[in-house]
Amino acid sequence: MVYEVIDYRKAESDLAFGTTIMSPGKVGDEYYLTRGHFHIRRECGEAYYTQSGSGLLLLESRGGESRTVEMKPGTCAFIPPDWAHRSINTGPDKLVFAWFCATDAGHEYGEIAERGMRKLVLDRGGKAVVADNPRYSS
Amino acid sequence: MVYEVIDYRKAESDLAFGTTIMSPGKVGDEYYLTRGHFHIRRECGEAYYTQSGSGLLLLESRGGESRTVEMKPGTCAFIPPDWAHRSINTGPDKLVFAWFCATDAGHEYGEIAERGMRKLVLDRGGKAVVADNPRYSS
Repeated sequence: MVYEVIDYRKAESDLAFGTTIMSPGKVGDEYYLTRGHFHIRRECGEAYYTQSGSGLLLLESRGGESRTVEMKPGTCAFIPPDWAHRSINTGPDKLVFAWFCATDAGHEYGEIAERGMRKLVLDRGGKAVVADNPRYSS
Repeated sequence: MVYEVIDYRKAESDLAFGTTIMSPGKVGDEYYLTRGHFHIRRECGEAYYTQSGSGLLLLESRGGESRTVEMKPGTCAFIPPDWAHRSINTGPDKLVFAWFCATDAGHEYGEIAERGMRKLVLDRGGKAVVADNPRYSS
């Protein structure tokens, strides 16, 4: 198991939160990552509060802009509404973060599963490097 | 200044978050606290992720039930929709926590300001004790 999501979603609340625990590791030179997704309700943002470990939050807008936000203990990263997002564990330890979003935000995985994200995060001699995804198809 | 709120609310997002930094201290034997409030939109919950320090989250339902949740680094406390809430710094250091709620949840301070909350958190020989509020008027 590469990552585990603990969901404290409450049906009676508009706000959902939980914890994601990602193992360290790589497939080839690509670090372990979560499944990239959009929210079904496009107006819904999200926040990631990193508890331990180190990684990158990879963001991609509908218009094709890519951004990364460092994930390290004590930082709170914001995912703007309608940006695809994926977490990448670039460190030697587990990456643990709490996430917060609307209970009914919904996950839309199909588009990213099909076409990939425009950027990859690769291990280049022990350093995390953001690179173009050669398998990306628009 | 007893406490400070840094608000990262974004108009274009449904989710608001920020950081509250509370000084340690007391007024008489009552620890420093935030202004208790309900949310204007009664369906809106909230989550508090404690970064540093130690305290109590005091919750009170519309029906008059009181609860406390310990605030300490790494814990995420949930405020159910339509429960009044207040944070109390019971420790010797700053209490710092990140909060997450709907951008349009809204703050309703009047009711608690007028009648108080049913419980107080008091210093009894260096220990935080939850006690009935003698000034509470229903």
